[in-house]
Amino acid sequence: MISASMKAPQLDKSTSRDQLLKAAGALMAERGTIDVSLSAIARKSGLNSALVGYYFGSKNGLLLSLVKDVLGKGLRQLDGLLKMDLDPIDKLKLHVKAIINVYFRYPYINRLIHHMLEDRELGREVAETISKPLADAQCRLLQEGVASGHFKPIDAMMFHFIILGACDQLFFGRHILRSAFGIDEIDDKLRLRYTDTVLDVVLNGVLAKSPSTS
Amino acid sequence: MISASMKAPQLDKSTSRDQLLKAAGALMAERGTIDVSLSAIARKSGLNSALVGYYFGSKNGLLLSLVKDVLGKGLRQLDGLLKMDLDPIDKLKLHVKAIINVYFRYPYINRLIHHMLEDRELGREVAETISKPLADAQCRLLQEGVASGHFKPIDAMMFHFIILGACDQLFFGRHILRSAFGIDEIDDKLRLRYTDTVLDVVLNGVLAKSPSTS
Repeated sequence: MISASMKAPQLDKSTSRDQLLKAAGALMAERGTIDVSLSAIARKSGLNSALVGYYFGSKNGLLLSLVKDVLGKGLRQLDGLLKMDLDPIDKLKLHVKAIINVYFRYPYINRLIHHMLEDRELGREVAETISKPLADAQCRLLQEGVASGHFKPIDAMMFHFIILGACDQLFFGRHILRSAFGIDEIDDKLRLRYTDTVLDVVLNGVLAKSPSTS
Repeated sequence: MISASMKAPQLDKSTSRDQLLKAAGALMAERGTIDVSLSAIARKSGLNSALVGYYFGSKNGLLLSLVKDVLGKGLRQLDGLLKMDLDPIDKLKLHVKAIINVYFRYPYINRLIHHMLEDRELGREVAETISKPLADAQCRLLQEGVASGHFKPIDAMMFHFIILGACDQLFFGRHILRSAFGIDEIDDKLRLRYTDTVLDVVLNGVLAKSPSTS
């Protein structure tokens, strides 16, 4: 898109790239909207906006990198979690906590994903690198729990939507929180309160009835 | 805003008003976005766009009326449901089904509410007429279930977000459905499959353990 050789020969690639991603994420979090301009991102990062073209090709490329950076790490952790020697209940607990923590730390991430999914080409990339691997990992986790007798059989595709919606709504609906409940900020205490309630409702909802009660 | 007396003396007020609301909702559903112009709404309804000013004061007034029309009916039904002679489990089942049906019939409604909540003044009105009465009714339903021994104690404010998120995510995330699962349309069968899974997870998640198992 732009000729890179003359523009940034002296810059540390990983640092400048990270600075731009960090600035984009920080602006979205501060402003409560994913609608931030390249010039605002450049201003926030202290770098030239042409560098976005150099590192990411376009603004969409930057958004895609942001999503992959934030959620790719989470997906690798989920993969590691699945391989651990824990019972499926504990794995699901840790997974739910991790999802809520991502939404808490990156409150713009779900809006960003939905925005990208509306675009056919970006959407395909997000689906392949994020949504499908996540749904697939959740499916394996549920299957493991059913096989071990901890979970009842659950429709994994439907569960994928239920769990994401349940974990996200507090953050996505933070304007409801303000207007209807008078709470301006989601602090750590509220995050924990939400996590406990999601775990209480959703985890109990998938548990198999214990043999003694049937 | 506009002088009404000369503009629409011959029009049946309720019909034209309803036609405009219907056209706005139909456009949002067709296009999968809440970003529809007054001129597009007027074209779709076959009426003059100045009538929006006459009936609703502004585009925001029209959006508010649309939300109140769609959800006000649901809130009145929920109020009726709470007074019925049913056990709290059946009431919660019917409530969950009703929420999913609203999102199914009006797939734009949640986006529209979130959009309006971002505006401080509109948000206050939506919170007072929709979010607060809904959260309050859900709280009473949960309390009734706890009092009757059917439900365990649940944080009602947190539950408000969990249940809305769980019910909505399939519709809000219909692009995920397409990109990650290859499903283009939410038909009646999928709606029922989703409803069953939400009920299976969320209802079981709030049930008190039966006395014999404790």
